[in-house]
Amino acid sequence: MKNVAVLGAGRIGRIHASNLAALPGVTLKYVSDPSAQFAAELAQRLGAQVATIADVFADKSIEAVAICSPTDTHSDLITRAAQAGKHIFCEKPVDLSVTRAQACVDAVKAAGVACMIGFQRRFDPTFGEAHARLARGEIGTPEMLVITSRDPGAPPVEYLKASGGIFRDMLIHDLDVFRWILCSGDGDEAAWISATGSVLTDPAIAAAGDFDSAAVTIRTQKGRLCQINTTRRAAYGYDQRFEVLGSAGLLQCGNHRPTEVVQWDAMGIRGDKPENFFLQRYAAAYRLEIAHFFECLQSGQPFKTTVADGVAAQKLADAAAESARSGQPVQF
Amino acid sequence: MKNVAVLGAGRIGRIHASNLAALPGVTLKYVSDPSAQFAAELAQRLGAQVATIADVFADKSIEAVAICSPTDTHSDLITRAAQAGKHIFCEKPVDLSVTRAQACVDAVKAAGVACMIGFQRRFDPTFGEAHARLARGEIGTPEMLVITSRDPGAPPVEYLKASGGIFRDMLIHDLDVFRWILCSGDGDEAAWISATGSVLTDPAIAAAGDFDSAAVTIRTQKGRLCQINTTRRAAYGYDQRFEVLGSAGLLQCGNHRPTEVVQWDAMGIRGDKPENFFLQRYAAAYRLEIAHFFECLQSGQPFKTTVADGVAAQKLADAAAESARSGQPVQF
Amino acid sequence: MKNVAVLGAGRIGRIHASNLAALPGVTLKYVSDPSAQFAAELAQRLGAQVATIADVFADKSIEAVAICSPTDTHSDLITRAAQAGKHIFCEKPVDLSVTRAQACVDAVKAAGVACMIGFQRRFDPTFGEAHARLARGEIGTPEMLVITSRDPGAPPVEYLKASGGIFRDMLIHDLDVFRWILCSGDGDEAAWISATGSVLTDPAIAAAGDFDSAAVTIRTQKGRLCQINTTRRAAYGYDQRFEVLGSAGLLQCGNHRPTEVVQWDAMGIRGDKPENFFLQRYAAAYRLEIAHFFECLQSGQPFKTTVADGVAAQKLADAAAESARSGQPVQF
Amino acid sequence: MKNVAVLGAGRIGRIHASNLAALPGVTLKYVSDPSAQFAAELAQRLGAQVATIADVFADKSIEAVAICSPTDTHSDLITRAAQAGKHIFCEKPVDLSVTRAQACVDAVKAAGVACMIGFQRRFDPTFGEAHARLARGEIGTPEMLVITSRDPGAPPVEYLKASGGIFRDMLIHDLDVFRWILCSGDGDEAAWISATGSVLTDPAIAAAGDFDSAAVTIRTQKGRLCQINTTRRAAYGYDQRFEVLGSAGLLQCGNHRPTEVVQWDAMGIRGDKPENFFLQRYAAAYRLEIAHFFECLQSGQPFKTTVADGVAAQKLADAAAESARSGQPVQF
Repeated sequence: MKNVAVLGAGRIGRIHASNLAALPGVTLKYVSDPSAQFAAELAQRLGAQVATIADVFADKSIEAVAICSPTDTHSDLITRAAQAGKHIFCEKPVDLSVTRAQACVDAVKAAGVACMIGFQRRFDPTFGEAHARLARGEIGTPEMLVITSRDPGAPPVEYLKASGGIFRDMLIHDLDVFRWILCSGDGDEAAWISATGSVLTDPAIAAAGDFDSAAVTIRTQKGRLCQINTTRRAAYGYDQRFEVLGSAGLLQCGNHRPTEVVQWDAMGIRGDKPENFFLQRYAAAYRLEIAHFFECLQSGQPFKTTVADGVAAQKLADAAAESARSGQPVQF
Repeated sequence: MKNVAVLGAGRIGRIHASNLAALPGVTLKYVSDPSAQFAAELAQRLGAQVATIADVFADKSIEAVAICSPTDTHSDLITRAAQAGKHIFCEKPVDLSVTRAQACVDAVKAAGVACMIGFQRRFDPTFGEAHARLARGEIGTPEMLVITSRDPGAPPVEYLKASGGIFRDMLIHDLDVFRWILCSGDGDEAAWISATGSVLTDPAIAAAGDFDSAAVTIRTQKGRLCQINTTRRAAYGYDQRFEVLGSAGLLQCGNHRPTEVVQWDAMGIRGDKPENFFLQRYAAAYRLEIAHFFECLQSGQPFKTTVADGVAAQKLADAAAESARSGQPVQF
Repeated sequence: MKNVAVLGAGRIGRIHASNLAALPGVTLKYVSDPSAQFAAELAQRLGAQVATIADVFADKSIEAVAICSPTDTHSDLITRAAQAGKHIFCEKPVDLSVTRAQACVDAVKAAGVACMIGFQRRFDPTFGEAHARLARGEIGTPEMLVITSRDPGAPPVEYLKASGGIFRDMLIHDLDVFRWILCSGDGDEAAWISATGSVLTDPAIAAAGDFDSAAVTIRTQKGRLCQINTTRRAAYGYDQRFEVLGSAGLLQCGNHRPTEVVQWDAMGIRGDKPENFFLQRYAAAYRLEIAHFFECLQSGQPFKTTVADGVAAQKLADAAAESARSGQPVQF
Repeated sequence: MKNVAVLGAGRIGRIHASNLAALPGVTLKYVSDPSAQFAAELAQRLGAQVATIADVFADKSIEAVAICSPTDTHSDLITRAAQAGKHIFCEKPVDLSVTRAQACVDAVKAAGVACMIGFQRRFDPTFGEAHARLARGEIGTPEMLVITSRDPGAPPVEYLKASGGIFRDMLIHDLDVFRWILCSGDGDEAAWISATGSVLTDPAIAAAGDFDSAAVTIRTQKGRLCQINTTRRAAYGYDQRFEVLGSAGLLQCGNHRPTEVVQWDAMGIRGDKPENFFLQRYAAAYRLEIAHFFECLQSGQPFKTTVADGVAAQKLADAAAESARSGQPVQF
């Protein structure tokens, strides 16, 4: 039985805590959060105790921690957890600074602990099936990837100011999907990236120094092409699709819908909008992701999403942001 | 905290036991099964104890039982549970004999306990959404229902011999859906039923006195029409769809799929087959169904699927079987 | 160059006249219609002459006629055309009376002319592709057919009074599809038919002695099952679908849509309604049907839809009407 | 009655000739082609005469010409036709040289004749419906356009050498769609374009100085974003889709399919591949396009696709080609 602590009892912390508490062989021992109320509610619901971070790191019985706190605490907590000899699950991103993120890689390596970054999309059943078929060669060699990644609405402007901007905040997931889908089969990597952005929905986003709409193009060393389009405000909801073209076919990953009801009436033939937002859309992915973390700890197999993947995605996000600012592509 | 026992640790018993054990406010205290091994494995996995049925009924702390044992034990267990003052969740059907099923209704009434029959399809998110839209009048008044209900493969012939046949075994669910969708809004009921069946897949099914393919038509008192088609062997898997036509439109309930991957290649454009079988297709329905049982016990609200619904569906199944045998319709 | 006359310049006559006039090797010489205006307009548009029926039959240069006049004139015109030695294309049905329809078969045979009945659905690209795959065994042996056949709105009650009723008027097409899809591979035929009907949309339809909603079930000699559901008023338009289950899979024929635009907005994800009505839905079928007529005349190959097919469908329609009236199935 | 000549009796010339010959009020008088055989065959089939280009221009009865000859003859023929006072329908592109294309604009203007460029996609029923809904504001203000434009296979390398390359040859259509969909509502235009290309399918394409795979991004003056992805070889066929995001929703234009048959079997649920290639996919568009040409000549209304549109698309194609070569974006 593995004893675990969850650091951070906000929205994503609650998801991970509930999922890991339901795993056989895993005990959620501690919940820690600056908000005593958040920590107590979550701990009580799942039969855990409230603890400080220092207590967590000091408790020898704790084998692993799940870091679900705000982004700007990640690198510090990863480093401290590594030094305390705890295995680490950390929500994306590692850190908005590639330098600090790289320091986390080093700290984890030095401590000999395992560290997984939460790119949950790699665990989504739809995306995972596409990846598996690609790996089995069902559509030949990958050539082109088109990602549509759109949020239903922008977060508060205050959040945007600290988020690192649309490329680091939203597109970090898509940049990881790019590496996973288009490159991971044979070690290909991005060679050239070009991005551009606009503010089309709310001038306050421009005032916060961010974009609400962006388009990214990546060419890899092998000449594969990836296009990503995104907006912070899609009127029809949360849109999470990608299509990968291979030499022998195409794999298309569609949205998930709450139900399979289709209504035919005088207006047309109408199905559901996509699942509301990421908590619904990726509910299965979050469950499978945290299960993967503990399975790998058990088996000694490597994680599908390492801290090095986190750093690599961050570098791409930085390059996209730079390209959008300068209007010029970035070469790697 | 409600203490509960599960009677029957087979395939469906394990589903219900796992789901109810995860509900807040519900404790799975006992598991009972003629197979000591089945009972022990399930009890251990969920932290319950193994008990005999007599022990369960004798334990005053037990408020409710979930009857998940073979069909031919249902009426006896319902009666005994009612007499012991336990609330009852019982898998469909109540009993293959309408007489005995009606006796269960009486026993439950006499004992003043609550009894819910497990027609899980009423709790399926897709079917439930269609029902809700119908109730809100989004397609006007219902006029016609077409149900496609197909299994991926026939059960063993030994099972078929005791199952009561395709109308009582498979179509009981669809006959309940008919009542729920086409009749429940205004108390309409079947007035005329005609059924016919064939054996097209395996002569052993004919030898067992059953059909593998059947077609049912029902006309209600208000003149609404329902057609049900079924087979025990659909080469493409488990097919669970219905369409209800209303005066202002149509609601179509499609299959659920494991993933939203669509593959485009030289053969065409191909999506997933439906979810494999009922345990996968109705996973959410089973969770919501058992939660509904305990919510109603808590709130005192009536169940959506009562023992009277079980009897009504059984009567329709009997009439369909009789019609298929005689080649003549049955009037109610 | 084949000289041809079109008898009847109404809606369907105009379709056939335009289509045949565009065929290489075919000359539309005459148009005949009781309405001098209709005849003149059509003749002028297509460069033909107006003629009486007697003139048409007397003109030795006319090799074939297309009978597009009202149903109650069909058998007389078929007989006269046959006697005049003209090859015959006749819109469905042959005649509302099976006796008179059979007399047409005899007259055609006696005269040694070719006679094709216009069941255009057999020429629809979608339905035709399904038939071809079935014939190639792509889904194994056929077992079950489900037909959804719905009109967008009822014709005037005056029309209904003379139409022979919903089974002869609307379902004649579907009954032909049943024979074509479920029986034609190996000479199977209907053995048992049961039908029921209701009036749910307009009491005037009941007053005219007809139904607006009907459900038909057919069992063939080989035990195959067919269900047909129909309404004269589908709020969402013209619905023309069927699904055929085989031992190795299912072929589903969906509606055709005017465009492939899908709109995603706050209401959901919405595609087009089906093509408006039969002239749009079967535009290609009408073109291919009349081309088939002339190709067969040229090559001497048999027609896909003979006058015997017309009689066979009429017998099924009669049986369905009788069953709906009596409430009892009809055996063949 | 308008007398017309078709210049060029190749694949596209035959399409236009057949379509215009079927229009009421239009007479195809001449066909001209360097291949006497091609000219004679087409002329005979449609009841026209073979003529030299000089004869065509000299015949005062000819009001309009359709230029369907190779690209490198377009500007010369447009200029000569204009000087001869003929109205002009010319297949895209105007000319691979923007300078020569602009000279055509001037020649047409000086002669006071009408000149339409054949961007047939604007006449496609699906694309046209999307444009109409956008114009009616059904999805609010346009923000983003994603175009997937893929050929089933590359043309011969010899063709590629003279084609101007993938941006001028294939993407010229998509660049016109970009202007039509994202810009035409309010006079917006491209402000910044970035393109990149690869050779992934056949090294001979690289040897010919072209790409087989390309990705283009455009930002307009108003900040709207467009991404286009293309390949010369999609294993699943001809892929012609676009999606336009607006402030209130999304319009998605899907492929057209030959039939609506869907096959369910052990492999999955499979629909048709898209229509085979442009002659099939855009058959309706070609008909509607040439009808539009003559309707505008008749009514005096402006064409939907002018020679100025042809020049504008050519400028975008040149900029995309330059960007792909240099690796740097182009500003307008």
